[in-house]
Amino acid sequence: MRYSHLFGKTSKNAPSDADSPNARLLEQGGFVEHVMAGVYSWLPLGLSVLRKVEQIVREEMDALGGQEIFMPSLHPKEYWDTTGRWDKVDILFKLKSQTDKMYALGCSHEEVVTPLAQKFTRSYKELPFALYQINTKFRDELRAKSGVLRGREFRMKDMYSFHTDQADLEAFYAKALEAYVRAFKRCGLDVKVVQASGGIFTDKISHEFQALTESGEDTILACETCRFGQNLEVATLKEGDACPNGDGKLVKVKGIEVGNIFDLGTKYSDAFGFDFMNEEGKHERILMGCYGIGTSRLVGAIVEAYNDDKGIVWPKAVAPFHVHLVPLKSKDEEKRKLIDAAVSAIETDLAERHIEVLVDDRDKGAGEKFADADLIGAPLRLVLSEKSLAAGGVEWKERAAAEAKSAPLEGLGAEIARWLKA
Amino acid sequence: MRYSHLFGKTSKNAPSDADSPNARLLEQGGFVEHVMAGVYSWLPLGLSVLRKVEQIVREEMDALGGQEIFMPSLHPKEYWDTTGRWDKVDILFKLKSQTDKMYALGCSHEEVVTPLAQKFTRSYKELPFALYQINTKFRDELRAKSGVLRGREFRMKDMYSFHTDQADLEAFYAKALEAYVRAFKRCGLDVKVVQASGGIFTDKISHEFQALTESGEDTILACETCRFGQNLEVATLKEGDACPNGDGKLVKVKGIEVGNIFDLGTKYSDAFGFDFMNEEGKHERILMGCYGIGTSRLVGAIVEAYNDDKGIVWPKAVAPFHVHLVPLKSKDEEKRKLIDAAVSAIETDLAERHIEVLVDDRDKGAGEKFADADLIGAPLRLVLSEKSLAAGGVEWKERAAAEAKSAPLEGLGAEIARWLKA
Repeated sequence: MRYSHLFGKTSKNAPSDADSPNARLLEQGGFVEHVMAGVYSWLPLGLSVLRKVEQIVREEMDALGGQEIFMPSLHPKEYWDTTGRWDKVDILFKLKSQTDKMYALGCSHEEVVTPLAQKFTRSYKELPFALYQINTKFRDELRAKSGVLRGREFRMKDMYSFHTDQADLEAFYAKALEAYVRAFKRCGLDVKVVQASGGIFTDKISHEFQALTESGEDTILACETCRFGQNLEVATLKEGDACPNGDGKLVKVKGIEVGNIFDLGTKYSDAFGFDFMNEEGKHERILMGCYGIGTSRLVGAIVEAYNDDKGIVWPKAVAPFHVHLVPLKSKDEEKRKLIDAAVSAIETDLAERHIEVLVDDRDKGAGEKFADADLIGAPLRLVLSEKSLAAGGVEWKERAAAEAKSAPLEGLGAEIARWLKA
Repeated sequence: MRYSHLFGKTSKNAPSDADSPNARLLEQGGFVEHVMAGVYSWLPLGLSVLRKVEQIVREEMDALGGQEIFMPSLHPKEYWDTTGRWDKVDILFKLKSQTDKMYALGCSHEEVVTPLAQKFTRSYKELPFALYQINTKFRDELRAKSGVLRGREFRMKDMYSFHTDQADLEAFYAKALEAYVRAFKRCGLDVKVVQASGGIFTDKISHEFQALTESGEDTILACETCRFGQNLEVATLKEGDACPNGDGKLVKVKGIEVGNIFDLGTKYSDAFGFDFMNEEGKHERILMGCYGIGTSRLVGAIVEAYNDDKGIVWPKAVAPFHVHLVPLKSKDEEKRKLIDAAVSAIETDLAERHIEVLVDDRDKGAGEKFADADLIGAPLRLVLSEKSLAAGGVEWKERAAAEAKSAPLEGLGAEIARWLKA
């Protein structure tokens, strides 16, 4: 992609209302555009990142045996009355149709997935199973804040599992917990697995996945060495205590919740009278678990964890582009032709290798192009200039590294492919 | 995928409230589940079809130079006041937040995309460009009907283009029109390109793309031989007239509108004061076009066009699975083992070729399995039985063909791959 054609350019100035690094950098870099408090448009660069994050999450849910479905955002009031949450969930958006029907706008989908699963489940033979979707969610937040971290409209992967008994639920819950840790790891985030309160979902056990960053809105008690943590809200331990899992000490740290999982017990199956037939032919109540990852929030959390004073430093797996290719101007026509030819050759080579490259083809100086490359944060910047050609090739500058080096043009594509896999 | 594990099974009985073939067959086949009037959940089979349709549309929009973005569904009332549509569009869902802010739920995105494009556009050098999204839309329909054809919540691809002058707009409009015809063709639908009214969008020219089916809700005057048509609402010709494009006669037919394109002129750029700087450095008003395809509606239209008394007959490109593999029971243990081994071998072979196969591994009789295969409608049914093995392989039955034939096990995968490409 040529930067001159890309919709959504960088901005020299930080948005005046940005209250966090992700709000500032995602908007300044041309990834998202603020529509109103808590509501964003995702521009091509941002959508590229969001899609990669969602694909990683999808792959991990598929590997777990989850089946992808797509549920509506308009929910009949009757479903939310059935669970008693119509009046209890204060962030629930409610609306009325021309024909005076009342709807909820989905902030979570227990009310839709439970009767859906119920319709297709008769016997223990069909259990367990898990359904998930990746969809837009709506929350009537009193105060939207922190960019894409706490929005009124956001993207989420929500999975729901259905079980015959507690042991089966807990076995799946444990596998889902590991799949979550893997998904975050693939997105570049090491998380603490934190014991937490069930909130509006359940009174039973639940875990949050916390990415540690200074700008996090949650305070947690986390082990210095392992992934253990407790949310202060439910903490039974205190700062300085030994971690129950080993030798580490517990310290207070700030985190961003990027996912959560809940043992729902029979809360929702009770509400809908969702039973199955056991091996003795008797009716028993279904047990449920639910598992959420805010995928747009996850993009924000990655930015909070990976940035410096110049911009974003995307992990390779979720970067909008792998390579930011910067040709510099030359007054010498001969050299200009050489640079143009090298740019085209690299573009073609990388396209064949399915390596995504953004070419800054604008008529701008080195300073502005480098500043934009740093702001956008692709993992690798390649510079083609009189100087780089004189040194025998391109300037190779990894976004996360302090120093640049020279790399030969010959074999460049293969070298980039190797580096990306490393 | 094993059918015993697939969420969402076929149902013997048609839903009592189904008012059209797509409503009946999509629900009976386990593709979608009715949540309330005009609102559906998409189950794994249905989501598979929807994704394929959306990917075809995405590829055609990308080929046209469209850039994909993702805009919110919550729109600030102020934007809709700016265009004067807040009070004019009767199917607009409106809602109020806890903090007394009024929002529209997006039924179309001119109100969001216009100020978005405006923010990033200064000069004629940046024009033309086109932005599109594939997203959920909401319409407060008085009467939702016809399954996924007219819903209160549905999927849509909407594209918006921005131009310096009328000639540039019309050149892009003409290219978009051809891309639309190609996208529908790839989905199996030959469409009539119908001159139509601009509805709530514009007073200028617009075209509808009509898939002809008996159950269509629109009446159009269409050429018997070419793709020309006029919507009766705006018809300047009458039944029996000669087609202006050739020798064909115009006849009245029923169609389903699967897409529409509009010359928006300066309607929205006037509202937002969206100008660009021309080559002389003077301000001029931007011209806009908009281009919509209801992707979930398109799934319904495909079902309306491709079904028989036994079920759906999916075109290859959008089928939820390519192959429906049906092993039949055998009382002979030796033969049962042969059948099981052949099933596994075919599954492995097809997986390596990225050919999707649904294996009906249920303990059911041939009659029930065949009826379900016909209802679900994968393009190719393969039967493995004592009889087929005695005949030297599998029974090969194309869903669209009347007769079955025998095919050898050896080279089966390659033969299927060839057939799918044909």
